[in-house]
Order: sequence, then structure tokens, then C-alpha cells
Amino acid sequence: MKYVYFFGNGKADGGKDDRDLLGGKGADLQEMSRLGVNVPPGFTITTEACRLFMEEGSLPEVVRQELHENLDRLEETRGKKFGDATDPLLVSVRSGAVFSMPGMMDTVLNLGCNRAAVEALATLTGDRRFALDSYRRLIQMFTNVVKKVRLDAFEDILDEAVEKAGVPSDAELPAEYLEEVVDQFLARYEEAVGSPFPEDPREQIEGAVHAVFDSWNTPRARKYRQLHDIPDHLGTACNVQSMVFGNLNEMSGAGVVFTRDPATGEKRLFGEWLQQAQGEDVVAGVRTPLPMSAPTDGSTNQLSLETFIPTAYQGIEEIGRRLEKHYSDMLDMEFTVEDGELFILQSRRGKRTGTAAVQIAVDLEEEGLLDQNTAVQRVEPAALDQLLHPRVESDAGQDVMATGLPASPGAACGIVSFSADEVEELTEDGKKVILVRPMTVADDVGGMAAAVGLLTARGGMTSHAAVVARGMGTPCVTGAGALQIDEEAGTVSAGGFTVKVGENITIDGTSGKVYPTSIPLVEPQITGAATMLMGWADDARRMLVRTNADTGEDARRAREFGAQGIGLCRTEHMFFAAERLPHVRAMILAEDEETRGAALAELEPMQRADFRELFEAMDGLPVTIRLLDPPLHEFLPHHVEEYADLAEQLGESAEVLHARGQMLSGENPMMGHRGVRVGITAPSVYMMQVEAILRAAAEAKANGAVVVPEIMIPLVATATELRWIKRNVYEPSVARVAETGELVDHMFGVMIETPRACLDAAAIAEDAEFFSFGTNDLTQFAYAFSRDDSAQFFPSYLSTNIMECDPFEHVDQFGVGELAKMAIERGRSTRPDLKVGVCGEHGGDPQSVVFWDSIGLDYVSCSPFRVPGARLAAAQAAISGKASHGGTR
Amino acid sequence: MKYVYFFGNGKADGGKDDRDLLGGKGADLQEMSRLGVNVPPGFTITTEACRLFMEEGSLPEVVRQELHENLDRLEETRGKKFGDATDPLLVSVRSGAVFSMPGMMDTVLNLGCNRAAVEALATLTGDRRFALDSYRRLIQMFTNVVKKVRLDAFEDILDEAVEKAGVPSDAELPAEYLEEVVDQFLARYEEAVGSPFPEDPREQIEGAVHAVFDSWNTPRARKYRQLHDIPDHLGTACNVQSMVFGNLNEMSGAGVVFTRDPATGEKRLFGEWLQQAQGEDVVAGVRTPLPMSAPTDGSTNQLSLETFIPTAYQGIEEIGRRLEKHYSDMLDMEFTVEDGELFILQSRRGKRTGTAAVQIAVDLEEEGLLDQNTAVQRVEPAALDQLLHPRVESDAGQDVMATGLPASPGAACGIVSFSADEVEELTEDGKKVILVRPMTVADDVGGMAAAVGLLTARGGMTSHAAVVARGMGTPCVTGAGALQIDEEAGTVSAGGFTVKVGENITIDGTSGKVYPTSIPLVEPQITGAATMLMGWADDARRMLVRTNADTGEDARRAREFGAQGIGLCRTEHMFFAAERLPHVRAMILAEDEETRGAALAELEPMQRADFRELFEAMDGLPVTIRLLDPPLHEFLPHHVEEYADLAEQLGESAEVLHARGQMLSGENPMMGHRGVRVGITAPSVYMMQVEAILRAAAEAKANGAVVVPEIMIPLVATATELRWIKRNVYEPSVARVAETGELVDHMFGVMIETPRACLDAAAIAEDAEFFSFGTNDLTQFAYAFSRDDSAQFFPSYLSTNIMECDPFEHVDQFGVGELAKMAIERGRSTRPDLKVGVCGEHGGDPQSVVFWDSIGLDYVSCSPFRVPGARLAAAQAAISGKASHGGTR
Repeated sequence: MKYVYFFGNGKADGGKDDRDLLGGKGADLQEMSRLGVNVPPGFTITTEACRLFMEEGSLPEVVRQELHENLDRLEETRGKKFGDATDPLLVSVRSGAVFSMPGMMDTVLNLGCNRAAVEALATLTGDRRFALDSYRRLIQMFTNVVKKVRLDAFEDILDEAVEKAGVPSDAELPAEYLEEVVDQFLARYEEAVGSPFPEDPREQIEGAVHAVFDSWNTPRARKYRQLHDIPDHLGTACNVQSMVFGNLNEMSGAGVVFTRDPATGEKRLFGEWLQQAQGEDVVAGVRTPLPMSAPTDGSTNQLSLETFIPTAYQGIEEIGRRLEKHYSDMLDMEFTVEDGELFILQSRRGKRTGTAAVQIAVDLEEEGLLDQNTAVQRVEPAALDQLLHPRVESDAGQDVMATGLPASPGAACGIVSFSADEVEELTEDGKKVILVRPMTVADDVGGMAAAVGLLTARGGMTSHAAVVARGMGTPCVTGAGALQIDEEAGTVSAGGFTVKVGENITIDGTSGKVYPTSIPLVEPQITGAATMLMGWADDARRMLVRTNADTGEDARRAREFGAQGIGLCRTEHMFFAAERLPHVRAMILAEDEETRGAALAELEPMQRADFRELFEAMDGLPVTIRLLDPPLHEFLPHHVEEYADLAEQLGESAEVLHARGQMLSGENPMMGHRGVRVGITAPSVYMMQVEAILRAAAEAKANGAVVVPEIMIPLVATATELRWIKRNVYEPSVARVAETGELVDHMFGVMIETPRACLDAAAIAEDAEFFSFGTNDLTQFAYAFSRDDSAQFFPSYLSTNIMECDPFEHVDQFGVGELAKMAIERGRSTRPDLKVGVCGEHGGDPQSVVFWDSIGLDYVSCSPFRVPGARLAAAQAAISGKASHGGTR
Repeated sequence: MKYVYFFGNGKADGGKDDRDLLGGKGADLQEMSRLGVNVPPGFTITTEACRLFMEEGSLPEVVRQELHENLDRLEETRGKKFGDATDPLLVSVRSGAVFSMPGMMDTVLNLGCNRAAVEALATLTGDRRFALDSYRRLIQMFTNVVKKVRLDAFEDILDEAVEKAGVPSDAELPAEYLEEVVDQFLARYEEAVGSPFPEDPREQIEGAVHAVFDSWNTPRARKYRQLHDIPDHLGTACNVQSMVFGNLNEMSGAGVVFTRDPATGEKRLFGEWLQQAQGEDVVAGVRTPLPMSAPTDGSTNQLSLETFIPTAYQGIEEIGRRLEKHYSDMLDMEFTVEDGELFILQSRRGKRTGTAAVQIAVDLEEEGLLDQNTAVQRVEPAALDQLLHPRVESDAGQDVMATGLPASPGAACGIVSFSADEVEELTEDGKKVILVRPMTVADDVGGMAAAVGLLTARGGMTSHAAVVARGMGTPCVTGAGALQIDEEAGTVSAGGFTVKVGENITIDGTSGKVYPTSIPLVEPQITGAATMLMGWADDARRMLVRTNADTGEDARRAREFGAQGIGLCRTEHMFFAAERLPHVRAMILAEDEETRGAALAELEPMQRADFRELFEAMDGLPVTIRLLDPPLHEFLPHHVEEYADLAEQLGESAEVLHARGQMLSGENPMMGHRGVRVGITAPSVYMMQVEAILRAAAEAKANGAVVVPEIMIPLVATATELRWIKRNVYEPSVARVAETGELVDHMFGVMIETPRACLDAAAIAEDAEFFSFGTNDLTQFAYAFSRDDSAQFFPSYLSTNIMECDPFEHVDQFGVGELAKMAIERGRSTRPDLKVGVCGEHGGDPQSVVFWDSIGLDYVSCSPFRVPGARLAAAQAAISGKASHGGTR
């Protein structure tokens, strides 16, 4: 049994398949090293060693021995010695578990630093401050992590030094003050720990390894594992890696680079670097980074990495090609150049915009690195949403106040706000807001999520604002350095234009342009690479994707996005139009069937015209129309004065009508007089709707359309309800239509929204030809969570981790999913060809779509803009289903 | 194959085991005849004959032949001839299906009547009017039933005759007018049917048999079968039975008799008869009936059956003994005496009060006719409710305005109403009402059910009012002949007292007394026979019966009724007391934990005292306490003005508090911020309650009580909710109690009220030591039926037969029941000794209790008054479970 795996110099004892033994980070470092990528050499102590450590309570002798052998090998490989007075070797010791547990376990940097090494580093880097600060940090971290003395044990010493030196923070402490601080730290260490700080680098490293293994069992790590279902017995691996210094000299630096453009997917190195700097400096965005490549216009830019350290640039290009081929994907890499030598510190799948994701997947297929199905699986369905962002209609003649970096694509127009909090408030009031900031910080995330666009004056393409915006698919322009943001005056100015807080501004995250006014945007279309990818997706998927649409316009747009029919038309949305509402109200409040009949006679032609438009828009595709569903009181006015016109129309007093309306408003309207219950208490309403649907379909057919109507009954809880509606509402209506005109072929089905309907599905399927799950309601009733009221307690559920996500966003596969599965099995036991779909919000949620595929739905239905994402998710579900189950359903 | 089964003269071709072939009525007649009971002889044509009839569309020749052979045999047995000019034989022809279909199929009486028979009957009975009326009725019935001519075809003839004769109705038409009516009927028949009325009795009978078989397939019969799941192919049997005439002469009569007193169970003949009358006359209650037995005080009463026709009386006594032994039950019998000869027309299980049911079951066991388990099964659990009716505290010194018949036991006090409709309205307004009427009719049933008591001036112990009242367990006094009911003046007077409509009156259905005021009633206790029966029930049952009780008083009463612990204490009921509400409101509206803590500190001692009282009342038995459940806004005032005191207390403005309160009221409060969600958002509330429970238990224990506390968390939907509460509320509270005093043994469990909790039960049972089903809520969420709102649509559900009963009354075994079954199986898969109960309304519903037993619940819990019924139902479930499954669980 081997406990330590070495990597470096183009070789490695392990690789990417050894994650269980070496952890995620270890396996990746080994793999890169094995591929010949120059990673700072080091070694991984296995999870098996950690398990032994946990059993024995200390580092087993056999592991200790291997540790020291590998430290020897590391000195040899790097040609440096620990504690050397001219070129000392420093290492980091980091945990690396099989499943990522970010921030949960311990890390110690700068191990190997001691008095001698400080002097050597000071000479080597010419930066005594840096050398002393490295030592200071080691003492502090070692005391805290290895010796378990509180992190703030040294704070007073630093504070005092800062005050004495008269500098704003400890980052600015001059070297002479740091000398003193180090001495005081060492004294404080000895006082707290009871022995002097270990000057022996090997003693330091051994302590750090011990601490990392120990940190597997801290309460917070245990808690994290409990919440994420990670077994306690796994243990962590531990990586000991030599440190490199991008701040060593002029021929040093650090940067971040993507192998392709993460915004557009274009195939070119894309990144930034800082000369004579560490990696943190790039990410922090404090100094403005330099470009990777020489400008393509032929002008020379001395500070591009390509011109300044061309060997490093070429190295990155070459490694990028190699890694892309190896991983068949676009990657981002963190690199450091130490005195001209290129080290890759990390490489991973590069984050990208939706546009880039699609372009890269299609390009990789064309380059032969992926097959079509794999390309389809490479794009997050949510990423497609970004392709559906608006863009500027025409740039011609528009004033441009500034141009920044095109950090996240799509155009957005909204009012200016300088405060993330204010953005949240304004958005709640229904405003569209663009957050404008010098640069963003982590605290701004709430406002960033609420904003329709982000604009920053500073920061690059990898700044906080840019990364977050791309992740959320929000249009973003960063580094628009011309912008003058005057927070006090509440103005943002550039190029001779001034926009005040609360006034409109437009940004284009695709071009980087900022416009000082509101300008017209156009809705997006799916073209180019996306069209190709969606074609592959459509070839792969089993489930159909329909749309929820109540108007011809929605239906036509959804059809452009690839919808294969309407899965849900909510007829009640048609009832709220101003010219209809009086008749709807008369229908509801009618005292007798005659009065109600008169109101229904007014509504029937309007509904018929609506339905005909839908049938024509969906020529050749099915259209599912749900009969009236919401509680009736939702259509009624609240105040008695508003009943005046209605009173005249119905010949009754406003007071009487108001009182009758009040009777209809329930204590718990969601579980009240709605859905099929309206069809049972007022059958004429449903009869009117059934007839309007069938006559509209006949009219559309006469106009040449191929019509496939599906009539859907909502909120059914028992088979007897549906049977009653079928016998007493549906069949008589069908008979009446057949008597007076053509009766088109159609289906009769049910929306499955109550837990009891799932249980009763076998009997329900005797009368229903299709099921469509209404998972919003099914979730409400399964949990007894009112969606309208859950804001009162749901934040506590998320903050306590009682729930990991909102069950209205991603379907609760365990509870609601089991009910759905049961309904399908039982329904198909009665009617093997039962058609089953979902038309709630979960029909458009990619994660849920995968689940729907797994339980055998025939289709999902979602809002028009979610259709492309659903098509892709359905394809991915079918592909991974094929891969894991070895065949199609 | 034999198609006709004869019965008569102490013999019969069939018996009670031949129901499939002979129908219910036929089998019973055969059985009685076989037992030697003198039933009017006749025969049954089998269901098989009916099926043949349906196939062929007419009476098969083989059946026709057997029919005539049996008519011959009937003439021989009775010694009478059809159409005989001196002593003619008349028969009835009635349907008799396997499953009772009351009123659905056809009957023809007086068959055999013709001109000759009329003359003979007139001579024999000395009542020419009766003879002519019998003939008139036959013509009318035959025309309608056999010839399918509308029932009102003859009405104009009757109306004209009534007018001409100047009498109030056709019942008073003198013979001479009836002669003319008969002639006109015969003419009208010939005109409508196209041939003369058949004077041949056999032709009449054949036509009637044909009509009865035909009536199996009328639309209303088909519809009835569809609703009651009776297969169409069964067919009906047809009974041809000779008619007997209680109105023949002075030595004739008819009556109804119970073999034991149906009100008290006392072992004595109990009934009424009318001399020279038909059975209908007794049931209709028009003439006041005569007693069966001679008075026991030695006075002679010429008109008791015992003194007037002693042979008939003795015959009834003897047959009663024989039938009781045969059926091991108390029976009621309809009898007719024709010229001194006793005929039993029908005998069946006698309806009885709860008191009588208990007494009879216990007596029959003592007489060796039943074993204990069968005795237990003989009493409807609902009947026990009647034993729990109040009685008059003391009769001494009370004014009595009248004494009637003690028709249904128990005393009741309420305001007088003369109208059944008004009773329903007043009851809805929360009034207790006594319905006072000369006599009741079928239309009054709604008001009779709503009334707390019934009082009639006319009618006997078997009148409509008496029978219905006993069935419903409503106290009832009938035949209080002294009462003067003046509907116009709105007064009821007797014995010098007058009570106005709307004023209080008291009746005692046990003594028959009527008191002109409201007088004190006392709560009942279970004693005597009931105690014995309940003892047998307790021996037999497997499930425990607990009670839902929130106060010591409720707990003590329930314990007297046999409750074996508290299954549900709703802590919130304790919060509504005037001195607590301000603190409850402060707790709810507190802006910070400090303010909330102060309010909780006020509430804790109060809750602790409540709980201690419960623990002491339930010494030795478990007490399940549910933590706060309802939506918090239920505790808050509605109007801003009502917040004034609270505002002062909390140092905030009334407007702010009102607004904060408004935030808490939800759109769908039943699915909103309540139950465990309150425990998660405001953990300190639940902590206070857990500590109060545990400290109260320790105090009660210190006082010498044996305490078994069970802490229950409501409205859980996910295992993670319960786990969070356990770790963050329950365990810290337990630790705090243990630090400061004795920690008593107790259990931690969960109320299962959401569909999702049923699905998640395996994981929930990891933390829950017991489950208690809250089936009100579980029903609401399974159906998505708000109990508060279902009145808007539920009447339609019942009137359309979409539902046969209210799922809040009897548990929906299919849907809700399956969820419960699933929860138990899954819960016990994790924790085999999981204790499971039910504490919703269904815990006290006998029909539901049987279901709970079948799925393995450990206990049911119900309101105190339902405890005895639940004990009995649980015993019956266990006994029938043993019988059908052959063993205990």
C-alpha cells in the first residue's frame, strides 16, 4: 500500500481516475502533471492515509516516512532546499476531498519559511516587505491551524504596528515595522504554545499535514457533510505543493486565461495578466490587468504577455491546445510565470456565457472533439435563456456615452441606480433597473440578481461583476473607464452626456457600448450555432415540448422557439379583458340559469374567436385548453360601489350583488370553489366552453387548419367528479355541437393537481384520455404550502437548510415526484396509451425536465421563452438515459 | 330446474339461505313459513325465472305452467277460490330483489277482485264501501302498472264523484257513488287499453307477474342499481301471496308488535293494534291504537288484544319466542287477525333505541342466545351516543304540563318551534329547538334531525315521529293528547300552562313528561348493561381509545367514559383565555427575541399549570400535547383600534402592530404560516412549550402522578423539518430542563397531516417515536378541499352522488386511507415499534375506526362523548377482523 503520490516534471504517480484515493484537487494536479503540463511539483497524501490517521489519532509512521521521502524528492525536482539561505523551497499544504467541501477544511501556505528563508526571499525578490509578510502570515496561520490558537491572537500586535507606522492598513506596513511584528509574533507564539516556533521546515510541514487531516472532523465540516450527504468515513487527501512566485522579478507574473472567448465562444486565447504579481492580485481586480495577446491591428503593446514573455505565451497556447484535446472542452487556467518559467496552477472547465457555450459545443463537434450527443450535453439548458436576451435594434445614429468591456451578452435598458439595495426595492415595485457601480463586491449580489443589467467603471472581463453577471445571464459592461460616477450628485457622466439616478440608460453587453438614453431593443431569435445544436437536441430527445400560451401571439412566438403544441391554455386569462369582464361577472353572479345563459351567450363567440386563433397558430399541433379554473371571486370587484353597472345590467341592487360576491370569497380560496367544482355547481359555464372549443376547432378546420383539440378538466380529486363532468357536461355539449355542425376529432382529459387524483388515477383514466400534471398546485397540496403565503416562512427554510431549494422551482422528486409516478403507473394500468404531460412551472425547469423524462412523460409544456431550454433538457435526459440504461424506453 | 317455490301451512320449498334465488322478501317469507309461523300462504317466482323472462321478453311457458300449478295449490291451502261468489281468494304480487331496492319496482294488490268477488266481500265484511274500493284500487293499479297507462288517468272521475257526493275526499265516498266510479273506471279502462278489464283472476295475476319482472328494467330501477353497484343481470324474484283482511269483522284487526320494549329493552311484548282495521291504518297513525297487553294493575281493558282476542295474543307471544330464538335477536312483527286467525305478515330485526340495543344484547347473552363477542357486535356504536343523552336532574316540584308516550329516551330543553324549516334556521343560528307538532310527516325530517327534541300531540310509539326520533337518537315524546297547539296564536297549552313559540320547554323522552319551562338536566353516565357490554368490548378490542382534551375537566370526563389517555391536547385553545391573549399577541408581534422572551416568560407558568392538571387527571396514562398549530393571525385583533393596549405594552404604535399583524394573515392560511413553520420561524415559542410540558410533568410526578408525556409537532411535510426542530428546539429545551430539575421519560413524535409527510414517513420515523394522523387536514390537502369553504360546492357533490358521504365525516379509505397505510408501512420500516394513532375527527367515527383497526393503528383519539362509541367500534373491528382473518394481528 502506497500512501503518497508524487507529481511533477511531466510525470505523476496517479491521475484523474484516482479521485477516491487522491481527492478531486489531487487527482487533477496528478493528471496535469502526467500530461506534461508544468504544474508546481508536489505530492498527494491519500485518503487512505487520512483514514489510518483517524484510526490512530496521529500520523502513522509508514505515512510519515513516505512523506519525508517525497519531500526529499521534491527538493530534488525543484533543485531547491527547504530553509536554504539563497533559494529556499516553500510549500503549501491543502486538503482535497473526494467531494468538494469549499472552505470547510484547513490550508497552510508559505511552509518552509524561517529566518534564513526570509533573508533569501528578500534578496531574491528584492522585496523585503514581501518576504517578512510571508513569514508573518505563516506564523499566524500555523498558530491558528496547527496549534489551534484563535485567529485573532495576533491582531493587537498588527493594530499597534499600523498605528505606530501611521499607515492606513497592515498591507502598507513598511519592512522595518514588519521586522518588529515578526519578532512579537514569535514571542507571542512561544507564550501561547509553550515552545518556540519551529524553524525546521519539515517539522512545520508535518504539523500542517496533521492539521489538515484533523480538520476533516471539525464540527463545521461534519455539519457540511451531513447536509450534503457525504459519508464521514471517506476522509480527505492532503496536497503538499511547492510554491511559485509571480512577484519574483520583472520576468514574472500571474494571470488567468480561457482557451476560447468565454463571452462569444470564439477560438482564441482570452485572458489577462499582471506583471510581477501573484494570482490573487489578478482576481481581486485592484490593479488593471494587461492583455494576453498582442493587438491584432499591428500596434505594439509592450505589456501584452505575448510580446513581453513570448515563451510563456506560447507555452500557454500549447498547453491550452493539449488540455482542450484531453478534456474535449474549453478550459480556464491560472498560471504563474516565475522568472520566465511557466507554471499552471489550476485548469478547469471554463465558465462561459450561454452564447459561448453553444458556439463552443458546436465548434468542438466540428473539430471532431465531441460527437453530437455529447455536444448537446455540454450546454446548460439555462444557458439558452441568455441567447434569448434582447439586443439593440439598430446602433446607427445612437449616442454612445462610453464603451467598456462586453462582459456578459445581451442588451438591457433601465433606470440608473447606484445601490444594490435600492435596485432590489425598485425591482419589487416593478421597475427595470441598471446597477451602476465603480466595481461590485460580494455584498451586491442581491441587487445584481435583481437588476436587468450591470455597468461598472472598473474591473476586467474576469472581475467579480463580469463573472457573476455571466453566471446569471444578466447583460453586463465592465471597465467602462470613461464613466464619472458622482454618488453625491447622483449622476453618471461620460462623453459629454450625464444621466441622473432614476433616468434611463441602455447597455449592450455584447458590444460593450453604453447609451445615455432608452433605446429600442429587439427580441432575440435562435440562429447559427444554436440552430444547429437545437437540431441535434431534437434528434436526440424522446419527450415532446409544448408551450403554455393563452393568446395567438404567445402561440406563434413559442412555435418559433420550437414548441410542438400548446400544453396549457388558461381560458380564464381571456376573461379579464375589459369588454368581457362585465359578462363574466354577470355569469358568476346570475341568480338563475336564464340570466347566466344570457351572459354565457355573450361570452361564447369571444371564447370561440380566441380558440380559433390558437388552433390556427398551432395548425397541425395539439392544443390543450383547460376549462375555467380559478376561484370565481377573483373576477369580482372588491367594493360595493364597483357593482353599480353590474347591478343595472342584472336588475338587482349593488348591495345584493356585492353580498353574493362576498359569499364566493373563501377562507382558503386555493382549496375552495374553483376548478371542476365550478363545472359541477354551474355546469352551463363548462358547457359553453366545451362548445366554444369544438365549434372554434371546426371553424379553423374549415379555414384549412389541421386541428387537434384537447379539452382539460382542472382540479379533479376523484374519478366520480370527472365521470360526472363527462356524462353531464361534456357529452351533452358534444351532442349539441354534432347536431348543428361538424364535430372534430379531439381528446378529453384531466389536469392532475391534487394528491388524491394521483391515488385515484386508475379510475380517472377510465374517462380521461390524457393526464397533465399541474405541479404548482400538486406541490402546494402535497406540502400544504400556499405559494402566496410561503414568503412568511420560506426564507427560514432556506437559511436553516431545511430545504435546499424551492420546491416550486425544482420539482420535489421525492414527494411530488412519487405522486406523479404513481399516477402514471396507475393511469396506464387502465389505459396503456394514456398521454401524459406536465404544464406547471416545472415543465420548463431543466432539472425537473430530466426527472419527467425518467418517469415516462410524453411531453412537457412551459412558457414560450423556456421552450428552447426544455428541448435541450429533454434531449440531455434522453441521452443520459440511453447512456445509463443502455437503450431507449 | 324449479321456478316457483311455495310457502304456507308451516312448510316452505325454500328458506333464508335462498336469497339469491328467492330475493330477500321471498326468502324471509319462506323461512317464517318453514318455522311454522302462520304467514298468508303464497309462492315465490325465482330470480332465475326473471332472467329467463328478460331473455325471452315474455313469461316462459314452463314458468307459466308452474305459476298456475301453484295458484291451484294456493286455493287448496287457503280453502278459497279465485273469483268465488261467497269467499273469494285475493292475492298481492310484489317484487323482491336480492338487494333491497325500496320503492323502485312494482306491486299490485287485490288481484282476484272482480264483480263476483266484490259482492262476496261486501257480504263477508258487511262493508260494501270497502269491497268496492278494493275493486276500484285494483282497476287503477292494474291499468297503471300492468297496462302502463298514467296513474292520473282516473283522477277526474274520482274528483267528480267527490264533488257530486259533497264529501271532503274519496276516502269518504259512500258506496253508491263508488258503484258509479267503478263503472266509469271499467269504461275508461276499455277505452284506454282497447279491451275490457280482465275479470279472470288468473289473467290478472299473470299480467301482474309480467309487470313486476318488467319493472326490473325501468330507467329509475336501472339508475338506482347503477348508484348502488347492483349488477343488472341479477333480476328480481316475484312474490304472489294471499291477502288477509284485518277489517273483516270484530274478531279481526291488525297491529305492529316488538318482542321486547324498543325504548328500554325490557323483555315484554310491546306494540299496538287496531280492531277491525288493516295494517296501513296502524302505521298511518290516524286512529289512536289500542294496547297489546292487559294492564298489569288488574283493571280490565276490553280493548287490549290480550283480553279481546287472547288466542291471537298468545300466538304472537309464542311466535315471538320462537323467532327470537331462531334469529337470536329482538324482532318486530306486522300481524293481521282475520276472523280470529293470526297471520304474521312480516318479521324483521326490530329498530330500537341505544339503551334498548345495549340492554337486549346483554340480556340475549344472559339467555344464552348470543356469546359475548356477538353481543358486542349487535350494538351500533352510534347507539351508545343515546346513552350519553342528558336526563332530568330531579322531577320533584317541577310543573308538568302534559304526559305523552316515552317514544325516544333522553331529556331535552329548547325553544318551541312549530315549523321544521324554522327549526333548521334557528339551529344554524346556534339555538336549541324542540319541534312541536300535532304529528310529523316525512317532509319534516330535516327539522327533526336539527331539533334537540320532538314533541307530538298525536301518534303512538310506532308513529313516524317515534320511529325517526329513535333512529336519530333524539329525545321524543309522542301522543301527548292534552296538548292544544294553536298555530295561529303561536302557543302550545296544556294543564293550565301556555308556552309561546320561541319560549323554553323541556321534554323527557324516557318518562314521557313535558315541562313548561327550562329545567336542569344532568350529564349521563354509563351504568348497568352498558357497563357490562363495554367490559366485553374492552376484552375484545386491540386498539386503545384515547381522547382529545384540552382541559382537566374534559380529561376527567373522558376518563370516566373509558379514555386511555389523551391523544390530542391543542395547546392553542389555552391561548385564547382573556388573561393570556395579551401575552400571546405580544409574543406574536414581538419585533425582537427579547420582547418575545418577556411574553413567553409570562405564558410559561400558565401553560405549565394547564399541563400539570392534564397529567394529574390522566395519572398513569399517556398525554399527547401538540405544540402551537394554527396560523398566528388567528390570535390577533382585526381592527387597528383594538391594538391600543398592545401598543402601550410593546411600546410601538397601534398602526405598526396592526400592519405587522396584517402581514401574518395569509391568502390561504390553512396552507400558510402555521404548525411546525411557526416552530421554525420563532423557535422560542416551541422551546417555551417543550419546557412547560417537561416541567409540568416533573411537578405532577413530584405530586405522585405517573406521567407519560408525548410531545407532538404539527403539520410536518418533510423529515428535514422535524430533524431541525429536534436538534434546534427540542434537544436544547430538554437539556435546559435537565440542568435545572428532573427530566421525566417522554416521547417525541409528529402529527401526520400532509400528503408529503406520508410519503416521507420512513425518514420522519428516524426522529419521530410516534405518528398521529390529523385526518381533517390530511383530507383537506389530499382533496384540496377547504373544510371552511366546501359548503359552497359540497351540496352539489351530494345531490349529484359524486360523493356518497362527506369525507370529513367518514374517512376516505381509498385516498386518505391509502396515504395513511403508506405512512404506517414506511414509518415502521424504519422504526418497527413506531406507535401510531389518529386524533382527527375520524378517530371517533365508528366506520372509520374499523378502517383504522384494519391498517394497524395502535390507538384512536376522539372527543370525550365519542369515547364509548369508539371503544365499541374498536371491539367490533377486532372481532370481525378475527372472524374474517382467522386470528389476531
